[in-house]
Amino acid sequence: MTTTDTKITLSESDIPTHFYNIAPDLPTPLEPPLHPGTKQPIGPEDLAPIFPMELIKQEVSQEPFIEIPDEVRDIYRLYRPSPLYRARALEEALDTPAHIYYKSEHVSPVGSHKLNTALMQAWANKQEGVKRLATETGAGQWGSALACACQLMGLECMVYMVRISYDQKPYRKVMMKTYGADVVASPSNLTNAGRAILEKHPDSPGSLGLAISEAVEDAAGRDDTKYSLGSVLNHVLLHQTIIGQEAKKQMEIAGEYPDVLIGCHGGGSNFGGIALPFVRDKIKDGKTDLRVIAVEPGACATLTQGKREYDFGDVAATTPLLMMHTLGHEFIPPPVHAGGLRYHGSAPIVSHLLNEGLIEAEAYFQGETFKSAIEFARCEGTIPAPETSHAVHSAMVHARKAKEEGKPTVILFNLSGHGHFDLASYQAYLDGTMDLNA
Amino acid sequence: MTTTDTKITLSESDIPTHFYNIAPDLPTPLEPPLHPGTKQPIGPEDLAPIFPMELIKQEVSQEPFIEIPDEVRDIYRLYRPSPLYRARALEEALDTPAHIYYKSEHVSPVGSHKLNTALMQAWANKQEGVKRLATETGAGQWGSALACACQLMGLECMVYMVRISYDQKPYRKVMMKTYGADVVASPSNLTNAGRAILEKHPDSPGSLGLAISEAVEDAAGRDDTKYSLGSVLNHVLLHQTIIGQEAKKQMEIAGEYPDVLIGCHGGGSNFGGIALPFVRDKIKDGKTDLRVIAVEPGACATLTQGKREYDFGDVAATTPLLMMHTLGHEFIPPPVHAGGLRYHGSAPIVSHLLNEGLIEAEAYFQGETFKSAIEFARCEGTIPAPETSHAVHSAMVHARKAKEEGKPTVILFNLSGHGHFDLASYQAYLDGTMDLNA
Repeated sequence: MTTTDTKITLSESDIPTHFYNIAPDLPTPLEPPLHPGTKQPIGPEDLAPIFPMELIKQEVSQEPFIEIPDEVRDIYRLYRPSPLYRARALEEALDTPAHIYYKSEHVSPVGSHKLNTALMQAWANKQEGVKRLATETGAGQWGSALACACQLMGLECMVYMVRISYDQKPYRKVMMKTYGADVVASPSNLTNAGRAILEKHPDSPGSLGLAISEAVEDAAGRDDTKYSLGSVLNHVLLHQTIIGQEAKKQMEIAGEYPDVLIGCHGGGSNFGGIALPFVRDKIKDGKTDLRVIAVEPGACATLTQGKREYDFGDVAATTPLLMMHTLGHEFIPPPVHAGGLRYHGSAPIVSHLLNEGLIEAEAYFQGETFKSAIEFARCEGTIPAPETSHAVHSAMVHARKAKEEGKPTVILFNLSGHGHFDLASYQAYLDGTMDLNA
Repeated sequence: MTTTDTKITLSESDIPTHFYNIAPDLPTPLEPPLHPGTKQPIGPEDLAPIFPMELIKQEVSQEPFIEIPDEVRDIYRLYRPSPLYRARALEEALDTPAHIYYKSEHVSPVGSHKLNTALMQAWANKQEGVKRLATETGAGQWGSALACACQLMGLECMVYMVRISYDQKPYRKVMMKTYGADVVASPSNLTNAGRAILEKHPDSPGSLGLAISEAVEDAAGRDDTKYSLGSVLNHVLLHQTIIGQEAKKQMEIAGEYPDVLIGCHGGGSNFGGIALPFVRDKIKDGKTDLRVIAVEPGACATLTQGKREYDFGDVAATTPLLMMHTLGHEFIPPPVHAGGLRYHGSAPIVSHLLNEGLIEAEAYFQGETFKSAIEFARCEGTIPAPETSHAVHSAMVHARKAKEEGKPTVILFNLSGHGHFDLASYQAYLDGTMDLNA
């Protein structure tokens, strides 16, 4: 990188060859998931009906590095390595001594980091003869990613999309169908779970918890189908670590190391993806001064306000119990625009790291995140997704703090997605109709 | 590029230092624009009220290479050089001996190539003390690009957006406002031209021709404001030649030279951008076998069905007369989904090249272009804009022909924009409600 370069690109041979698994490096071991009935630790056989064995193995693996299959790396070439930007125009606008860097995961064809794990999951299922994946989606980011991955890997894809999003955000649905997926509104009449709700509430707007129940039932009931989840679980965060691995290499080329590392946090996959390879440095390479910050919405402040305890992953209390910071599985987050961060729980790995004091958490209300997102777009060109805007805002908070303290600070955050499908949210902010303090 | 690489990226130092001006290399000179009143060739003074002198000079320049200002090149770094892809998955799906390459202009923050000229135009205006640019936009691609460029260069931006698009495509409008632009529906009550229409037709849906009249009137009536156009004119195509210059360098790295070069064609800026540096090779370097193909919609087949003659650029017959292939300035194209290709005329440079036999033209109906676009998205991940889909379709036609003829053929096309704002069109195609033969 020369002194005037704006971005650091790597060659395709720099795409990581392995996923980084933090489990064996943790100071204390992760607590195991418990069976929802027996409350005893679950074994591989409990998960086999809905996940392929390769992913179950990854979920509990103690290997620090897990090889990425060639076919997955080949498809990563479509958009990886993703560029790392130096936000020079933003630095100038903030008149800060901080150096601000952002990793750009929005360059994937589906517009977010979600494709990283979707491709690996589709591949692992294909290897074991699975023909079809079922999943749920709220706003549609995850559904788009899995639809694209299934198409590129030659699998069928079935998406249960929360009814209210299905009606209000039609473009994500069209995107999934363009990639060849079947998309139905949830609750649907295709599952017992869906039919039970529709009988009582024919006009039900649906919920993510219910859509999960439908997708799991679909997968459990068909030999050719498995279930796929886009966040929270260990193997999902594992796949996303290619983000942080690339970013580390790019920061080396820039000749800097972050003082503050930032990712937005909903289920934990984006945050884990950028953070875990750097957290490894804190644990193993003495980078004890590095601050690693998960940023969540004030309206769903799992890490800053939740309790760390065993809880269910879904509203209906049917999934294994996970040890995590949670607001309670019956908590219904307010309808903030960062739909991807509206989850009552958190990834067990992230929760564990917070408990160990290896990471920190911050929460912001949506008004301030949109204000910062617009300032960012006006400097850097890219309009961030509302979820990502939480990381953007935090980066700007820390850059302003660096100015106040007169302290050169190197800040790195993950630009996990663009906002092309979220402009109705920007409109609400610009028109003054948004609840700024939600 | 190794044998398995998917894309060829260049470093920021490879961003072209000069725009390529084809005018002095043409076998016969371009016909001059004529004054709409006197029908005599216009001079710089006729254009000075609405364009800055630097762009007027570029419009008539006979210099083969025109230096790109450092500040413009610096902002190009945000998204340039754009990657060149080898479409390996598409080649495999088509089972063709052809090698298919595509240049990716959709990676710009606004999602298309339009930002290339918007930045240069904003810079040239700023140099001459202009504070504000006025323009028109139909579907919103150009308006978004100019809004972004003005924001990055520190100018104000006023966009007259065709009323029907303003109402039907709200997200492009929000994007422009996010970049800080003022956006009004045209006809508006801000100009004489707009008020005259509104008096007679209060519910007028507007038209691009009328929006041009409003923007020109705005610029002509204010000392601080000039007008900006996103296609057709010589200086606009000039700025876009950075696309073809980068692509040539990337094809060299790939160790291939195109047999067939393809760009979609509306006003001509995207086509000219990829094509002109290669047409130079035909004229000056003996690359006489290279086929260069402009692809237009069957519903607005300017090059394949229009006459080459002097015609007005706008419906109201107020602009200078340009020598171009035209369907007549009163021609109202059917409402096909590729809104950016719905223009009655063509760039004088493109028209001239067609007349000289240096390029060819093809026309396709929208049904076949959407079918090909979906096949492309399912192989390559990226969903193309409906305009771009014309180039995608032509590339696939030529790849299939290569298979029939058993002839290895190197095909290069420009992926000028993504379809994130056009998914309603994809929905119409997938739902079977599109007029396929329009």
